[in-house]
Amino acid sequence: MNEMTTRTAFEARLRRIGDERYHDRHPFHTLLHSGGCNINQVRAWVVNRYYYQSRIPMKDAAFLSRVEDPTLRRSWRSRIEDHDGTDTREGGIARWLKLASAVGLDPDYVASARGVLPATRFAVDAYVRYVRDEPMLKAVASSLTELFAPKIHADRIAGLLEHYDFASPEAISYFRHRLDEAPKDVKFGLGWVLDHAVTQADQDAAAEALTFKTDVLWAQLDALYSAYVAPGRIPPGAWQPGEGLA
Amino acid sequence: MNEMTTRTAFEARLRRIGDERYHDRHPFHTLLHSGGCNINQVRAWVVNRYYYQSRIPMKDAAFLSRVEDPTLRRSWRSRIEDHDGTDTREGGIARWLKLASAVGLDPDYVASARGVLPATRFAVDAYVRYVRDEPMLKAVASSLTELFAPKIHADRIAGLLEHYDFASPEAISYFRHRLDEAPKDVKFGLGWVLDHAVTQADQDAAAEALTFKTDVLWAQLDALYSAYVAPGRIPPGAWQPGEGLA
Repeated sequence: MNEMTTRTAFEARLRRIGDERYHDRHPFHTLLHSGGCNINQVRAWVVNRYYYQSRIPMKDAAFLSRVEDPTLRRSWRSRIEDHDGTDTREGGIARWLKLASAVGLDPDYVASARGVLPATRFAVDAYVRYVRDEPMLKAVASSLTELFAPKIHADRIAGLLEHYDFASPEAISYFRHRLDEAPKDVKFGLGWVLDHAVTQADQDAAAEALTFKTDVLWAQLDALYSAYVAPGRIPPGAWQPGEGLA
Repeated sequence: MNEMTTRTAFEARLRRIGDERYHDRHPFHTLLHSGGCNINQVRAWVVNRYYYQSRIPMKDAAFLSRVEDPTLRRSWRSRIEDHDGTDTREGGIARWLKLASAVGLDPDYVASARGVLPATRFAVDAYVRYVRDEPMLKAVASSLTELFAPKIHADRIAGLLEHYDFASPEAISYFRHRLDEAPKDVKFGLGWVLDHAVTQADQDAAAEALTFKTDVLWAQLDALYSAYVAPGRIPPGAWQPGEGLA
């Protein structure tokens, strides 16, 4: 194959990983987006997904800490700003806490990360460490689940607005903003991976990293489903319905 | 309280964590020990629990790598030998692979750790990193789940022998040996923690470490239950019944 064909085939390989393993295929999301969750299942999702959100800027800082090239650092830094905010712009974490308020949770409780499922912590912490410790190519490639995010965010916005009383435009502003932010990030990340994954071994490593990341996302939903949907066994110490209400 | 009372109360606090959160209380173990598992559920447990076993000597090596005192290193080193074996003595990992053969799995497949649930990896890897990165007191305290292990091993030996055709004395020799090995380890570890957890903050840290470890064990069984019992949804890429057979 010539160089362009290889690049196209490699991108197709990455996209296939999303088709097969991205967490839009998980039944918890079907339940959530179709209005099948009760309020406590929505709250459990908000409590646990907060932990993931809260670790994303730490993950991106771990990445920045390894980058020698100021241009790459500058491009990547906007991800931290998108989540943490700036003096003039609210960030994604603050928006997530608005969602927490909208579903009746005390945002301070959610921000404390008490009650987060241990399995959520283990999965998310594994992701932060992966980006800190693995080769740069794998660190960048692990972010490419954002390739598959726009559809799930669009489905979520529509599903939440249609099915749940709490879902005002303010409550779900996190997702609307991600629809604007994610495309620039993923365009940059995908271009970087396609440019740097030159050998077959590089491409295998990038595919492995993206697969790892789909596991991180899937494991969070499995844990949520197990604890709060079926069999509905909440592990010792994790959030119980009724806790952390505003 | 005088010093002895404090020590006794602290030990009672640690034991209470086991009473409330140790994984002998998890329904997967009830199922396993009562003969309620089908052969594929037993195999899934063998595949996944192998990953935990395989990381224990790595965890203990991470601990050794931090210890300055040769006497403490010498005491702790037997844990690695117990799992990895010596020139004249079989280790726990080899015994676990005998269990794998007994349940019809290819021991090379099990040893490859392919098919291990991502949630198992995340939990176990979190434990290895905890022992590598956290203060020494917490690293030692996290091993104290062994306080609660003899009962679960005795129940397991009796339950497996009574209910499953594969359960020969050879097949379950791992557990018999743990009954001999664990008491010396835990006597040493408990004594060390009681000696070194002097302040209230120390005791809180040790209790937190033991709680963390109970989460590591519980999360593994939750993931196993979710994938292979109920709802029985196997995550992408994880072991499927029929795979890895001898």
